[in-house]
Amino acid sequence: MKDKVFYGEGMKVVKELKPELYEILAKLNDEVYSGKVLDYKTLKLVAIAIVASRCDEKATEKQMLSAIKELGITKDEIMDVLGIVLLTSGMPAYVKAMKILNKL
Amino acid sequence: MKDKVFYGEGMKVVKELKPELYEILAKLNDEVYSGKVLDYKTLKLVAIAIVASRCDEKATEKQMLSAIKELGITKDEIMDVLGIVLLTSGMPAYVKAMKILNKL
Amino acid sequence: MKDKVFYGEGMKVVKELKPELYEILAKLNDEVYSGKVLDYKTLKLVAIAIVASRCDEKATEKQMLSAIKELGITKDEIMDVLGIVLLTSGMPAYVKAMKILNKL
Amino acid sequence: MKDKVFYGEGMKVVKELKPELYEILAKLNDEVYSGKVLDYKTLKLVAIAIVASRCDEKATEKQMLSAIKELGITKDEIMDVLGIVLLTSGMPAYVKAMKILNKL
Amino acid sequence: MKDKVFYGEGMKVVKELKPELYEILAKLNDEVYSGKVLDYKTLKLVAIAIVASRCDEKATEKQMLSAIKELGITKDEIMDVLGIVLLTSGMPAYVKAMKILNKL
Amino acid sequence: MKDKVFYGEGMKVVKELKPELYEILAKLNDEVYSGKVLDYKTLKLVAIAIVASRCDEKATEKQMLSAIKELGITKDEIMDVLGIVLLTSGMPAYVKAMKILNKL
Repeated sequence: MKDKVFYGEGMKVVKELKPELYEILAKLNDEVYSGKVLDYKTLKLVAIAIVASRCDEKATEKQMLSAIKELGITKDEIMDVLGIVLLTSGMPAYVKAMKILNKL
Repeated sequence: MKDKVFYGEGMKVVKELKPELYEILAKLNDEVYSGKVLDYKTLKLVAIAIVASRCDEKATEKQMLSAIKELGITKDEIMDVLGIVLLTSGMPAYVKAMKILNKL
Repeated sequence: MKDKVFYGEGMKVVKELKPELYEILAKLNDEVYSGKVLDYKTLKLVAIAIVASRCDEKATEKQMLSAIKELGITKDEIMDVLGIVLLTSGMPAYVKAMKILNKL
Repeated sequence: MKDKVFYGEGMKVVKELKPELYEILAKLNDEVYSGKVLDYKTLKLVAIAIVASRCDEKATEKQMLSAIKELGITKDEIMDVLGIVLLTSGMPAYVKAMKILNKL
Repeated sequence: MKDKVFYGEGMKVVKELKPELYEILAKLNDEVYSGKVLDYKTLKLVAIAIVASRCDEKATEKQMLSAIKELGITKDEIMDVLGIVLLTSGMPAYVKAMKILNKL
Repeated sequence: MKDKVFYGEGMKVVKELKPELYEILAKLNDEVYSGKVLDYKTLKLVAIAIVASRCDEKATEKQMLSAIKELGITKDEIMDVLGIVLLTSGMPAYVKAMKILNKL
């Protein structure tokens, strides 16, 4: 499977309680992260942007951590992406994400 | 200015009615789209993903159009990005964005 | 009842189909718009800001119309409020609301 | 497949443009709508409530139509569900959904 | 009053600080949870789905707890409902709700 | 600068990591909070309402604190504004904000 963050605590719960659903989600995750033309890194940056834009702090932290540790994405790359979060979603979403990034 | 979509009908209204605010927003837009490390195209894909993830159909269409016409972004690239919208935001957001893309 | 916009097409449907619920909502609406310390106009500006901040174009238009026609709220007052929408919620929400206001 | 609304215009686009993803989504849809304990009708009412609670008017109309035509769900059942939308999500979401329902 | 969760810490604050508003909300709550055709349990499942779909973790936990303790709703019933959250709102909302449920 | 809450922990991070962006945001913040016709206090109440309406608890607390400490806004004024949050955004958002206010 391509995205190790997929195997977090939450997905373990899904695997245990809903094994059939888990199998489908694992396939869906693999399919989506195997972009036809874009690389995994770009897709991961997109995922960070989406969860940050809706102030989902836990998911933002998880996605940033996975991006940095597993894919070698840099903080500068993430900060570029957060600029778009600022433009499209306002200051509270942006400032929260910058604080999370700064603590990683 | 880097993002021609910025000059849409709405920003003309802002320029006319709130000229000081418009100047600041133009600078903000330029600053944000001049990524330190990421290129303009990647940042545009991120903007598409964010507005699509919250079912903002008008903004999604505008961003997609501007991406294709001004930056030469392909439909395959946009579809890769929409896969992340599906994973993070569910089927209604994904299906709406795919329909919009298909009509462009 | 304090807020005539309350009597729009939608509330007529509620009155007809769910009369008991309608009565409670009418009381709730009156209670809320009878601020203990703030005047009706300020509360109406708050309502405009909230619906504009989530890109609800129809509700934004309705609230703006009711503000201008029933309460004599000015476009300058609404534009001041929309500045806060821009800061807290980003450019798509702001630009949409400015376009709606400009057409009234 | 259990949910005919799944075959709407949007999913046709997905089927054509992203056939592998479509297959996975069809399985996901079937798995989710085959509740372990709840029946299809209850799950459909839940879907209506979720899309109505976020003011997604197109998805609300689609889900209501599919509920009424394919599953024999009644307008009274949908109105009961919309009461929870009112409590949890406020009047604009509720009133919009009631107007949509009233026109079906 | 039908919904004991209504009497949580927050509503005590409302009762003390805004007694007139509290009375109206208590009536609204009773009216909404006295479905014309659907039973209380189904309406509660709908409430869980709505708050889970927007990643409101505190409200999700409260509603799940009240569902299980006061109404005898089972974890299997809640998991069925969360499947719809997954379809309509994506993986972060789903995984969060599954983790909350698993800890109850 | 007009809004001291602007200088919170998050903006310090932005100032350090993105100094050019920080300068633009400081100008934007000043411009927006210098309403053409509305006073600072009214604009601050609008900001509280927007963040409370989307259940952003941290931002709600920050904005309320800054409103009370820097601008002398009263709890009664904030409660009036939260009534509009209740009407437009439902009980979870309202109850959360009332609990936050009660603890200040």
